[in-house]
Amino acid sequence: MMEHVGKGFVLILSAPSGAGKSTLARLLMERGQGLLTSVSTTTRAPRPGEREGEAYFFVDEATFQERIAAGEFLEWAQVFGNHYGTSRGFVAEAVNRGRVVVLDIDWQGARQVRGNMGGEDVVSVFIMPPSRDHLCSRLQSRGQDALEVIDRRMKAASAEVSHWEEYDYTVINDDLERAGEALAAIVTAERLRRSRVALPLRGILETFGL
Amino acid sequence: MMEHVGKGFVLILSAPSGAGKSTLARLLMERGQGLLTSVSTTTRAPRPGEREGEAYFFVDEATFQERIAAGEFLEWAQVFGNHYGTSRGFVAEAVNRGRVVVLDIDWQGARQVRGNMGGEDVVSVFIMPPSRDHLCSRLQSRGQDALEVIDRRMKAASAEVSHWEEYDYTVINDDLERAGEALAAIVTAERLRRSRVALPLRGILETFGL
Repeated sequence: MMEHVGKGFVLILSAPSGAGKSTLARLLMERGQGLLTSVSTTTRAPRPGEREGEAYFFVDEATFQERIAAGEFLEWAQVFGNHYGTSRGFVAEAVNRGRVVVLDIDWQGARQVRGNMGGEDVVSVFIMPPSRDHLCSRLQSRGQDALEVIDRRMKAASAEVSHWEEYDYTVINDDLERAGEALAAIVTAERLRRSRVALPLRGILETFGL
Repeated sequence: MMEHVGKGFVLILSAPSGAGKSTLARLLMERGQGLLTSVSTTTRAPRPGEREGEAYFFVDEATFQERIAAGEFLEWAQVFGNHYGTSRGFVAEAVNRGRVVVLDIDWQGARQVRGNMGGEDVVSVFIMPPSRDHLCSRLQSRGQDALEVIDRRMKAASAEVSHWEEYDYTVINDDLERAGEALAAIVTAERLRRSRVALPLRGILETFGL
């Protein structure tokens, strides 16, 4: 329904590590529904080949702290000593232009976004693995982590899953294609919500004298 | 997502006459999403070939009035001197079994259903014609109605459209296939709402000790 561009929204995707969130997010972006990923701001050093403004905006620690103080982040977090934040201005501007901005964040980030934006502009989806064993197998089959690391990830996974009720939708990722279809359906449906179609409807309503 | 059957809901479809609602409802039913249409109760006499319990349950006026008094209808209306009602028991039982029950009713029926069921169990969609002219052309091209009848229908259409804001979603029917996809997406998405997936998730959450 791209011709009838109404108000956009932020689409929060959260999941425990290993549940297939990144793959699902990529599949969703590739469907041509006009989705946008937010470019995060980070204090981490650029890796070779990383260009400013592509995957990240790179800033120093002092700048990041200034932006936190100025309320310029919709959400921010510290991971392994580096800061990552989502720019409020970037997201708000895109949503007002009718775009759907995908945020790949955890439950703590999701809470910050809900607190910092109007509830009508946020749609959140929790991606659920089919079971704990299934998740554990996936983490093991990556073959890149020591048992100790996997154990830590599984504890973090249980903590993340415990927040599923804070999300609007739950998508069980037992089948990648079907879960992808489910995410796409959520985007399609949410675009058609009364609160988002008011603007594109205006012309039609006028023909009825409304 | 038929394997994970959660709680169902009532899907109300309303539209002005001529907006393509019946065709869209039929397309939606044919998609195999496990939808159910409600069998209405009516005081109208059966037409040749109509069998009890297929399109309608046929009752006499006294029985219908008893059922109104007993609160047995989710909604009822009088059309051309005949009564039509939707059985509360039939719908509630189907919703509890995880079914989506499609109700093809007008804004007055929609209001009654919202008043008689918990808000969580009702999803309503207003099907919007692309314009008043478009609707008028469709009614004229049916070729079955006198100008006076069309004029009356157009007045009724404007009245119906004026209630679009009482609905959760708006689907513009400017393209039958796309509008059908939109309805299907709404059904898929609404099945994945947090409040409806709690039961099928229980087994998964248990594996996480939740």
